Amino acid sequence: MSDSTPLKQGTTKQVTAALVIIGDEILSGRTRDANLPYLATWLNARGIVLGEVRIVPDRMSAIVEAVNALRTRFDYVFTTGGIGPTHDDITAEAIAEAFGVPLEYDDEAVRRLSAHYPPGGLTPARKRMARVPGSGTLIDNPVSVAPGFQIENVFVLAGVPEIMRVMLDSLAHRLIGGEPMQAATLEIPMPESAFAGPLAAVAAAHPAVAIGSYPYYRDGHAGIHVVVRATDADAIRAAVDAVAAAARDMGVEPRHETQEG
Amino acid sequence: MSDSTPLKQGTTKQVTAALVIIGDEILSGRTRDANLPYLATWLNARGIVLGEVRIVPDRMSAIVEAVNALRTRFDYVFTTGGIGPTHDDITAEAIAEAFGVPLEYDDEAVRRLSAHYPPGGLTPARKRMARVPGSGTLIDNPVSVAPGFQIENVFVLAGVPEIMRVMLDSLAHRLIGGEPMQAATLEIPMPESAFAGPLAAVAAAHPAVAIGSYPYYRDGHAGIHVVVRATDADAIRAAVDAVAAAARDMGVEPRHETQEG
Repeated sequence: MSDSTPLKQGTTKQVTAALVIIGDEILSGRTRDANLPYLATWLNARGIVLGEVRIVPDRMSAIVEAVNALRTRFDYVFTTGGIGPTHDDITAEAIAEAFGVPLEYDDEAVRRLSAHYPPGGLTPARKRMARVPGSGTLIDNPVSVAPGFQIENVFVLAGVPEIMRVMLDSLAHRLIGGEPMQAATLEIPMPESAFAGPLAAVAAAHPAVAIGSYPYYRDGHAGIHVVVRATDADAIRAAVDAVAAAARDMGVEPRHETQEG
Repeated sequence: MSDSTPLKQGTTKQVTAALVIIGDEILSGRTRDANLPYLATWLNARGIVLGEVRIVPDRMSAIVEAVNALRTRFDYVFTTGGIGPTHDDITAEAIAEAFGVPLEYDDEAVRRLSAHYPPGGLTPARKRMARVPGSGTLIDNPVSVAPGFQIENVFVLAGVPEIMRVMLDSLAHRLIGGEPMQAATLEIPMPESAFAGPLAAVAAAHPAVAIGSYPYYRDGHAGIHVVVRATDADAIRAAVDAVAAAARDMGVEPRHETQEG
C-alpha cells in the first residue's frame, strides 16, 4: 500500500467533515465522549468545519449506514472506537462492508504488532487489529502500536482519547483544509429574550458572519454569550462592534471575552 | 390541546429512543454537550434504550432530515436545543416542516409567557417561544416558563441542561418503558489484547447479556473495564462469574466495581 495523497485541491468552498462515534458505552451514558470537542477544535484550526456527528452502537448495520450516509456528503469522515482486539470491536468489518471490499491482514500492520509483543504473543485476538479493508492505508499509533486506517475519505481512529489524538497528528498531512474559521465571543449580561430582537437585526445586517446566541444562568442572573464566527477577521470585528452598540443602546455594557482563531 | 396519552402499550420488546442534539456550538467544539449522558441514564432507569444520537447544526434541512429519519425507527425521539427566542432558534419551524404541519401560536403558551413577563413585555422575539407545530402538546418548564412540546413520538426540549432536566420530569408520565437495563462492571488489571480471547469465549457462552470491553491506561498500566448488561440480574451474575473465573485462570484477580440498575 502506498501512503495516500491529499484528496482534493484546496478551493474557496467550505471544507467539511463528519464524525461517527461508535460505542454502546457512549449511548448507555457510562462513558462521556471526549473526542468530539477535541476533533472539532482540531479541525477548526485547519479550516475544516465539523458538519454532523452520529453516535451509533457496536452493531454492524448501524455503523455501515452512518458511514455510507456521511462519506458521500462530507469531504472527510472520521470514526472513533471499535478497533481494539475484543469481540465487540467490529468497526473494521463494518467499514469493509460499507465499501464493499474484503477485510485482509495488512503486512505492515502484522509486522508492527509482531515486533510489539513478545515472541509468540501475537494471539488471534491481537492479530485482528492488523486487518484493513481493501485499499486502506495505515494511520500510525505511536502510543500502543495497533494502527488506524484510511480508506478513501474515511479515517478510522481509536476511541481512547490519548490514541485518537496521536492518530490525528499522524494523519494531519493527508488533509487539505480551508480558510480557518475565527470567532469572537461577547458576554451580554441580559436575558436572551430581551436581546433577541436587536440581535436578529445585527445578524440580518451582517450576512458574512454566523452569529450564535447561547444563554447562561449564573448566581440567579440570566445572560447570553454571543459568538460571532467567520473566516474574515474584519467582518467579525464589524459584527462584534454592532452587537456591542446594540447592547449599550439598551443600557448594558458587554464584556469582550475572547478572540480565537 | 389535550394532554397526550401514552404512545403505545408496553410489550416485551425493547423500547428504544433516539436523540437529536441541535446546535452549531456543539459542532464547533465551543460547548460540550451535557444532555446525552443525563438522558441516557434517565432513559435506562425507565427501561428505554438510547439507540442513536445525531448532532446537527442550526440549519433547517439538517434538523428535518435527522428527525424524519429517526422518528419512524425509534419509539421515542428527543431533541435538545434551538427553542429559545433568538434568530438562530429554528427547531420549532424545523419540526413543523418535518411533520408537514403549520407552526402556530399556542394559546396556553402565550398565556404563560404573558403572565411571566411584565405588562407589554411579550415582545415578538419572546412570543416566538409560544409557537407549536400542529397538534403538539406543551411540555412544562418550571425553570423559565417557555415550554417545550411533544408532537407524536417526538419530544422537543431546551438545550440548557437545567431546563432540559425539568422538562424530562414534566413529560416522564407520557412514556411507557420496558424492563430496566441492569449492568455490572468488573475491572480486570490486564491489557485488553491479552484478555480478548477468553472474553470472546465468555460472550459466546452467554448470549443473553451484552458484554462490553473498555480499555484504560492509568499510571502506565493498561487494564480493562468489562461491562455486562442485561435486563435479567441472574444472567448478569452468571456472566460476571464467568468473566471473573477467566481472569483468575490467567492469574489476575478482578475487582468487582459496581452493580447498577
